[in-house]
Amino acid sequence: MSSEDKKKYMQLAFEEAKKAEKQDEVPIGAIIVDPDGNVIGRGYNRRELDQDSTQHAEIIAIREACQHLGTWRLIDCSLFVTLEPCPMCAGAIINSRVRTVYFGALDPKAGAAGSVVDLFAVEKFNHHPQVYRGLFREQASQMLKDFFREIRRKQKEAKAKKEIDNNSGNQE
Amino acid sequence: MSSEDKKKYMQLAFEEAKKAEKQDEVPIGAIIVDPDGNVIGRGYNRRELDQDSTQHAEIIAIREACQHLGTWRLIDCSLFVTLEPCPMCAGAIINSRVRTVYFGALDPKAGAAGSVVDLFAVEKFNHHPQVYRGLFREQASQMLKDFFREIRRKQKEAKAKKEIDNNSGNQE
Repeated sequence: MSSEDKKKYMQLAFEEAKKAEKQDEVPIGAIIVDPDGNVIGRGYNRRELDQDSTQHAEIIAIREACQHLGTWRLIDCSLFVTLEPCPMCAGAIINSRVRTVYFGALDPKAGAAGSVVDLFAVEKFNHHPQVYRGLFREQASQMLKDFFREIRRKQKEAKAKKEIDNNSGNQE
Repeated sequence: MSSEDKKKYMQLAFEEAKKAEKQDEVPIGAIIVDPDGNVIGRGYNRRELDQDSTQHAEIIAIREACQHLGTWRLIDCSLFVTLEPCPMCAGAIINSRVRTVYFGALDPKAGAAGSVVDLFAVEKFNHHPQVYRGLFREQASQMLKDFFREIRRKQKEAKAKKEIDNNSGNQE
């Protein structure tokens, strides 16, 4: 795949991540590309929105791609995701036979593509996707950092407001 | 949990597995039990039926339980499954904070609870369920063995029939 194409698809994954961000979800986005270059699956993190622990970006994108192709085998397909997959998503990538995985930011807490464990390198498993780590890593990391900084700012603001309300309550 | 209860819940997981078997799916079943002993999620393997690589018994049961409780956190819940979870399902169990996992047969090819990898023992992950391995292991293994023996028998029968058809075609 050309650098131009990789950039194009990764930017589409960022677009998905932004949909999550707009709904106060941790911004993570994923897309699936078929061998002809068509985008056949899209997903963004919806864990809080759906109150469902399985609603990660990659799972949603994989399910959409399976539905699109009418098969659970995503042979010769590529997955682009803004954050290193967790064990569940790495497992789903193996189960669906995705050929190539491109991801952005590393996840030192839950990354299953090298950061904590490397499920793609376990010889005994029956499928081993090719993995490209750290594609647009800076952009991907910055997006997550900005999101968590904003969360902390809002929490601080809410705490300060509560203290002011409590104090004025005491004085009344 | 009492032995009686464990037996009862595991038999419910077997009932789910039988639903898969009746539809020619690899017979794997799972259920989720809340802290009060209520069954709040059920699932059986539907990979071929739905042509969706994520439609494993555990994922379906977890999603149903999340929907039932209205939260992605299955705190203090137990999961019973007839086969050792794969990496995807072990990851989903960690993500959803299931407290206790009981499984039947070991999976030497894809088991992520000790057989190939042990995701539940990875210190860095933020949740570590308690795991009971090999509950009704014989029954669980036998069910899978019978299923695959039947598959092979049908394949052999179909092959023999094809050969007879070809031969009679040649004689006409």
